[in-house]
Amino acid sequence: MNKNYFDIEEYIHRVRSFHGYEAPGVVIGGFMVHLAKTQISEGVLFDAISETPACLPDAIQLLTPCTVGNGWLKIINLGRFALSLYDKHHGNGFRVFLAPGKLEKWPEIKDWFFKLKSRKEQGHEDILSQIKRAGLEICGVSPVQIKPEFLKKRDKGKIAICPSCKEAYPLQDGSTCRACQGNSPYI
Amino acid sequence: MNKNYFDIEEYIHRVRSFHGYEAPGVVIGGFMVHLAKTQISEGVLFDAISETPACLPDAIQLLTPCTVGNGWLKIINLGRFALSLYDKHHGNGFRVFLAPGKLEKWPEIKDWFFKLKSRKEQGHEDILSQIKRAGLEICGVSPVQIKPEFLKKRDKGKIAICPSCKEAYPLQDGSTCRACQGNSPYI
Repeated sequence: MNKNYFDIEEYIHRVRSFHGYEAPGVVIGGFMVHLAKTQISEGVLFDAISETPACLPDAIQLLTPCTVGNGWLKIINLGRFALSLYDKHHGNGFRVFLAPGKLEKWPEIKDWFFKLKSRKEQGHEDILSQIKRAGLEICGVSPVQIKPEFLKKRDKGKIAICPSCKEAYPLQDGSTCRACQGNSPYI
Repeated sequence: MNKNYFDIEEYIHRVRSFHGYEAPGVVIGGFMVHLAKTQISEGVLFDAISETPACLPDAIQLLTPCTVGNGWLKIINLGRFALSLYDKHHGNGFRVFLAPGKLEKWPEIKDWFFKLKSRKEQGHEDILSQIKRAGLEICGVSPVQIKPEFLKKRDKGKIAICPSCKEAYPLQDGSTCRACQGNSPYI
């Protein structure tokens, strides 16, 4: 298989199954991940960063070995629609972003991306059609170097039993677990 | 299909493909997600919380419609090996956790979970074998009610162009994007 070939229809089929529906952000994300992968040298073990929790993590999880649960994908919410793939040992890699300046030619994508129309006014099929035609054309790519502190593997350290909830937790979190420290989402 | 039936071998096959390898945490996570699903009434649209970024998010993403990218799965890092599925509108649901007190019968799982042995000393196949036999027996389940503030949908608000990096970002983040405010992982 030519590494420059990206089968968008096959990808959209997988998006429907995993993400639930062919969200524009995940579809564009497919092109973005594909572009980043073509920049990485053959055989390099790479990790991923998504700069947003929306949509892009699923594109990365569908098209690379990196998932949230295996720790190879980190979500660092910077609010930007961008992602990076980088050598997990040396931190050199490539960042791909949606380039706002390239959206003038694609009004449906622009209206969706900048939320210039309400959801109801937007034509889902029109957006998707423009995304498929635009493809890599609306993406930008640049080399990046990850800061050393972001290359460290997460280490939970020693595990203890929380004296309050009696469940296991990383002792480095304190004398009780974070939930019992008041961060629980439960009433 | 009997909703109480969980095909662990078929699940492990999918874990290998998605997560990269049959990590003990993801395999236990399969039983945990399955247990939570059996508690939820038929037809209820549910969201998910993982109380750890490790392993459990992948079990949830493999066995439910909830993914990080579609926003139906939230990761709230409390350091506990637990997850919740809950009615996305009303917040009532079930929390499933690995019960430390139930691990005495399963020394391999206990040694792995509490990191009582180094990775090299642990027998991966022995751990997996005990997990498959223990199954739901080492899990606990309890009803939960999610706090209203955790039920809100994320809303990025108005989108602007960052004057510094020229990329799109949520205006509510400030006068520049979070990356340009010093949170960038890149050198």
